[in-house]
Amino acid sequence: MITLDRPLDMHVHVRQDEMLRRVVPHTAQQFVGAVCMPNTLPPVDNLERYEAYVEEVKAAAAPLSFDPYVPLFFRDDFTREELSAWAPKLFGIKLYPAGVTTNSDSGVGEIEKIEPILQIMQDLDLPLLVHGETHGYSPDREREFVAVYDRFATTFPKLRITMEHITTREAAEFLGKHENVFATITLHHMLWTMDDMLGGPFNPFLFCKPILKSPDDRAALQDLVKQGHDKLMFGSDSAPHTEVAKRTEGAAGCYSAPVLLPCLAQFFEDQGILDQLQAYVSDNARRIYRVDPPQRSVNLVEKEWTVPPRYGSIVPVNAGATLRWWVEGANEAELD
Amino acid sequence: MITLDRPLDMHVHVRQDEMLRRVVPHTAQQFVGAVCMPNTLPPVDNLERYEAYVEEVKAAAAPLSFDPYVPLFFRDDFTREELSAWAPKLFGIKLYPAGVTTNSDSGVGEIEKIEPILQIMQDLDLPLLVHGETHGYSPDREREFVAVYDRFATTFPKLRITMEHITTREAAEFLGKHENVFATITLHHMLWTMDDMLGGPFNPFLFCKPILKSPDDRAALQDLVKQGHDKLMFGSDSAPHTEVAKRTEGAAGCYSAPVLLPCLAQFFEDQGILDQLQAYVSDNARRIYRVDPPQRSVNLVEKEWTVPPRYGSIVPVNAGATLRWWVEGANEAELD
Repeated sequence: MITLDRPLDMHVHVRQDEMLRRVVPHTAQQFVGAVCMPNTLPPVDNLERYEAYVEEVKAAAAPLSFDPYVPLFFRDDFTREELSAWAPKLFGIKLYPAGVTTNSDSGVGEIEKIEPILQIMQDLDLPLLVHGETHGYSPDREREFVAVYDRFATTFPKLRITMEHITTREAAEFLGKHENVFATITLHHMLWTMDDMLGGPFNPFLFCKPILKSPDDRAALQDLVKQGHDKLMFGSDSAPHTEVAKRTEGAAGCYSAPVLLPCLAQFFEDQGILDQLQAYVSDNARRIYRVDPPQRSVNLVEKEWTVPPRYGSIVPVNAGATLRWWVEGANEAELD
Repeated sequence: MITLDRPLDMHVHVRQDEMLRRVVPHTAQQFVGAVCMPNTLPPVDNLERYEAYVEEVKAAAAPLSFDPYVPLFFRDDFTREELSAWAPKLFGIKLYPAGVTTNSDSGVGEIEKIEPILQIMQDLDLPLLVHGETHGYSPDREREFVAVYDRFATTFPKLRITMEHITTREAAEFLGKHENVFATITLHHMLWTMDDMLGGPFNPFLFCKPILKSPDDRAALQDLVKQGHDKLMFGSDSAPHTEVAKRTEGAAGCYSAPVLLPCLAQFFEDQGILDQLQAYVSDNARRIYRVDPPQRSVNLVEKEWTVPPRYGSIVPVNAGATLRWWVEGANEAELD
């Protein structure tokens, strides 16, 4: 058995309404808290929506104790007055360059315009979470964005900046450059490459943004994980879409929530680094973000199970695969 | 009006049976002959199937005069006796490294093993057509294969070798290296990049093998086309799959047949090189392959039309786009 103390998923999309109620239990069974992204419709970009969204997620997780950490959706018209008033309650702010990912059309267009807000955030010690991609050629979008991270980190040396879901060697190597820069890595970018999505027949359930990268990029991410880098946090970027939306609308996002800890345990065990899993899925995040999640442990037990083809209308990653770790207390009825 | 004398599509998939009868008219309306690929089930890999397949395609094109040029599907157990006996009737032989594209599982596994057959082909002056991709990382498969082309061209300097559907700068730059190496370029690799397929929502109708490449690769292909390279031929690689197969099975292939000449004319006109279109879609191929297609011209007239969302069960590329050239005699009923 593996016991994880207060595991956290530092990047997840739980959507809204019926979809939210469907997916939050998967996350809450495996984690005691999660960074729930604010790219809802409309986005969570003020205190009122923030408080309502936190409550909606908590209600969906009940009776499990669960802390949703919801970064506010970055607006370039935030004022110092409102951010100062809200800051004691906020977790951070999430920056989406406009148009690069699901529901991010209202994100920020010109990176330069936002620096006054970053100054306020630094003054208020509000962390900045970033979807770091330019509008360039897909495989290069994150590599090109590293220069933006560099500029932010240099200009605002006390601002805590998290490079969300890093996918490239360039971002991995950049992680060590500035004290105030951190990163999350997803399960799918750690395990798979673009070839898993499109090297054979196209697999829409591995289509995500940022797109899966090369074997060399994946190796760089795995090296970071294996070295137990203390600025690295697990963040799944689990992002549910219905099978219909995946197949007919080309929706981007991997639904990994039901398989996260079993797959992570398997990878860490295969690499002989199971003793590092606790830091990766909890300790680093608690230290970096100074959060105090609910006192709850999650146990993984050795038990083979087969990932079901779908959870309701949602097809998970690794559907049909046999995994060897099972989350104690997970819903066995879903396996039928 | 643009009049094209004996236009040819030097690479097309017309499949079999009902699908064949559905798609051949699109090709026959625009071209007087086409290289019809032999990756049927079972593949066209002997003289009997070859003759039957030619007849099947001709029948589907009737009453239009149309020459199907069907390269035999490469088998590594071809004997000198059978190839010698068949050679006077054959167009060439198509080599698929095993497993890289639709129905190519029976293709050839180890490149080295096939050189005795290439020797026979050179002796018999039988052209070699190649799907040139390794089994490596998708975006690099063609780049890696250029070394194989180089080896073939050096070892068999009198063997005519066509690099089918080239997609990369490396292949484009390699075209000039050997006298006996030629190339085809598709419409979709000339017009689009990987971003058109997956830079926004995923577009399954631009998912093909080889996959769409980078803006730099596309620029290299366009440069070849614009310079009027005389070893370059148009080959659409139009490859029909039903919408269901595209969406639920991840089938690879772009169905471009209904829009080919209109899109080519538009591109050549926009580039100010309309006078080069004739060589690109006919003269080069007739010289390289020494074929004598039916004496028939195809006229393009200026008339705006909107590409329909689907032709029967098949979604074409450019669906919904407005094009300004119309193929005289094309089926207007399909626009409803």
